Amino acid sequence: MSENKIPYKIYLSEEEMPKAWYNVRADMANKPAPLLNPGTHQPMTAEELAPVFCEELVKQELDDTTAYIPIPQEIQDFYKMYRPSPLVRAYCLEEKLQTPAKIYYKFEGNNTSGSHKLNSAIAQAYYAKKQGLKGVTTETGAGQWGTALSMACSYFGLDCKVYMVKCSYEQKPFRREVMRVYGASVTPSPSETTAVGRKILAEHPGTTGSLGCAISEAVEVATSTPGYRYVLGSVLNQVLLHQSVIGLETKTAMDKYGIVPDIIIGCAGGGSNLGGLISPFMGEKLRGERDYRFIAVEPASCPSFTRGKFAYDFCDTGMVCPLAKMYTLGSSFIPSANHAGGLRYHGMSSTLSQLYHDGLMEAVSVEQTKVFEAAEQFARVEGILPAPESSHAIKVAIDEAMKCKETGEEKTILFGLTGTGYFDMVAYEKFHDGKMTDYIPTDADLQVGFDGIPKFPGNEF
Amino acid sequence: MSENKIPYKIYLSEEEMPKAWYNVRADMANKPAPLLNPGTHQPMTAEELAPVFCEELVKQELDDTTAYIPIPQEIQDFYKMYRPSPLVRAYCLEEKLQTPAKIYYKFEGNNTSGSHKLNSAIAQAYYAKKQGLKGVTTETGAGQWGTALSMACSYFGLDCKVYMVKCSYEQKPFRREVMRVYGASVTPSPSETTAVGRKILAEHPGTTGSLGCAISEAVEVATSTPGYRYVLGSVLNQVLLHQSVIGLETKTAMDKYGIVPDIIIGCAGGGSNLGGLISPFMGEKLRGERDYRFIAVEPASCPSFTRGKFAYDFCDTGMVCPLAKMYTLGSSFIPSANHAGGLRYHGMSSTLSQLYHDGLMEAVSVEQTKVFEAAEQFARVEGILPAPESSHAIKVAIDEAMKCKETGEEKTILFGLTGTGYFDMVAYEKFHDGKMTDYIPTDADLQVGFDGIPKFPGNEF
Repeated sequence: MSENKIPYKIYLSEEEMPKAWYNVRADMANKPAPLLNPGTHQPMTAEELAPVFCEELVKQELDDTTAYIPIPQEIQDFYKMYRPSPLVRAYCLEEKLQTPAKIYYKFEGNNTSGSHKLNSAIAQAYYAKKQGLKGVTTETGAGQWGTALSMACSYFGLDCKVYMVKCSYEQKPFRREVMRVYGASVTPSPSETTAVGRKILAEHPGTTGSLGCAISEAVEVATSTPGYRYVLGSVLNQVLLHQSVIGLETKTAMDKYGIVPDIIIGCAGGGSNLGGLISPFMGEKLRGERDYRFIAVEPASCPSFTRGKFAYDFCDTGMVCPLAKMYTLGSSFIPSANHAGGLRYHGMSSTLSQLYHDGLMEAVSVEQTKVFEAAEQFARVEGILPAPESSHAIKVAIDEAMKCKETGEEKTILFGLTGTGYFDMVAYEKFHDGKMTDYIPTDADLQVGFDGIPKFPGNEF
Repeated sequence: MSENKIPYKIYLSEEEMPKAWYNVRADMANKPAPLLNPGTHQPMTAEELAPVFCEELVKQELDDTTAYIPIPQEIQDFYKMYRPSPLVRAYCLEEKLQTPAKIYYKFEGNNTSGSHKLNSAIAQAYYAKKQGLKGVTTETGAGQWGTALSMACSYFGLDCKVYMVKCSYEQKPFRREVMRVYGASVTPSPSETTAVGRKILAEHPGTTGSLGCAISEAVEVATSTPGYRYVLGSVLNQVLLHQSVIGLETKTAMDKYGIVPDIIIGCAGGGSNLGGLISPFMGEKLRGERDYRFIAVEPASCPSFTRGKFAYDFCDTGMVCPLAKMYTLGSSFIPSANHAGGLRYHGMSSTLSQLYHDGLMEAVSVEQTKVFEAAEQFARVEGILPAPESSHAIKVAIDEAMKCKETGEEKTILFGLTGTGYFDMVAYEKFHDGKMTDYIPTDADLQVGFDGIPKFPGNEF
């Protein structure tokens, strides 16, 4: 099909939507390292994971050989409610930039969670329901994951207990309110509802909480309440698997129109969106079928890939979770104020970490004022108000398009636009008022986090 | 095509998108009454309207004979950025309600303005640009129109001055901030920037403003600043014309699948969405080709259709605008607290008023707590957080679907879902906390407004 026939937005038909998730680990020669029991330093077994996660999700977490895992019909039906998401040709942005590059983005924000998070939330809720559970627990910071999970649980009639970092709970009352629309109970963390919460409150009266603390509370409730399990919105292999629906739809849409991306860009916090977007393309690269450039974009204030260590570390600040081998800033690293709450995570998906370690993808870090400049430029021509997280990818996509303008190359750039910024207007306001500052941790700042990474034989870094 | 082949969402291809707007007035035997000069009570001429509105828009305002008006290519291209909007089969809602009715909705919320308002904003901005103007002025209450116009002006490089009702400006800082993303200047009204604003501030220090005051300020700035015109987001004939893109897309999508709606439902404030949605269907009814039931839904607190007078009245509280013949509660009627800000208008489109007066459509009013119950029910199964305005239509669509459940009738119900409620979480919170109350004006309350409707020969009511 000729170039000028490509529409502004490509939607797949229901028949063209993926029927199976793609598990990129199956095509990796160097598999991501397994989760370790923090006590024994031995790989976590399915039995050890079962009290925390649903059975089917444990299977998915540990399966690094099955390339395609069928999407249950109920989940396919739910996906039809808000998917396929559009693959957008950014004609307006291209014209504004006067670049010969062709820019595409896969937009995941057209659902109430405002992001791609729903793709995994509905899968995790489905398996919980199928297992006969009563409900699930989770933590949320920025609130997109909490919203997505609330929606998913409401759909399947599951109880949903969200521990929301107290400062977010207070600063983002509207996020909290959306979760209440879906009937979720939202508790500011730390709280009096758990032993760990009471302990923290006793030790640190007046604390505004942290993601690590919220995880600890959610895990405690899940493991101590019959019929409950804990669910997580990023980092895990199972989450990347579910998020592959993003990349699969994108690839089908591109194949249909004969579009081949040269560069694929995504923001990276825990890696759920980036991993999902690139998976099928990375599979081709791993199988030697086609080469692509992949670029992970992270905030300069929380630079796991670009300045972190590749080592076994705790997934949570509370150090109650298994150890994962990943690029990490140390579980005790507290990212400074950064408005992309979804990217404020000390670690990174093990799968993406291994791919990065093996030189199969690149990573760059960007400063937030530049990110908001890109966000505003994008909003003005593409009619979407992007989330700060997503805008990291926009920033680098624009940078790459401008390089094409200099060189005259007609590269095809694809990026993931994970969501909308309707609940991030405080950050936009700071940006408009010139009150937004950038922060780049010093080596000494980072060393504090590195010092907290557990030391044991085989975990040299 | 068989029933079970209808997808969850129907998207038109770019080729199927409308190339012309449909002007329902062309098919009306009883034309809507013309705007009157408030001084002479004679029909407003194009010359009289030219200082306020763009030339091309004046033409469209006055043209009640041309059925199809071509959509300029630049506007068609902009529409492709965020349209076609999906026509959704509400399978999940149907299942939840256990109704034999088939429910469809046309969802207009997938753009940053969060609503259908952009359809007319981009047209009005385009004609302003084409006329060589420097900028436009407008007022906004809830903020959807202001956001849409800001986006549109940013796209065409026009200056945009928005007068935002002061209480909204203060209560909805995020709405204001979205407009700033698009480079609009947003001024709380009343302000010191206009003569009328200074006058009002002197007379009523500490006033939190009103839509009527904001209109007066916007009109003053437009008519006193070279290169500026005033634009309005509803009520006017030109707006209904542009919004016909909603109905045209819907009709094309339905025709494609052989779907014929029995009932078409829309919320009605000034009438822009309802008029746009029903226009092509109403055209068929007017031409005697097919019959449909049309239902306008308005808040019980601001019941223009169901309890208003059909008379000539001012379009604005400040009484500076022309007189329009419409169902009105009187331009001095101040609707009480109601969270559907977009429906708090004392009057109604002249076109819809005439159609209602001629018995061609029905109207019902609903109380806001019932509206929020319906909104929440909808959000939980359809994955969209609806705006309070839109939820009025949801409420009546559910009511009609439940009637079908009682009678066993398999009616096809279509409603307009005008937008998202991301900036309305304060209202949702009140609802969840049981603090939302209903208000129905007494006859005495209404009489105060009726007393302000101008009396002159030919304006008996």
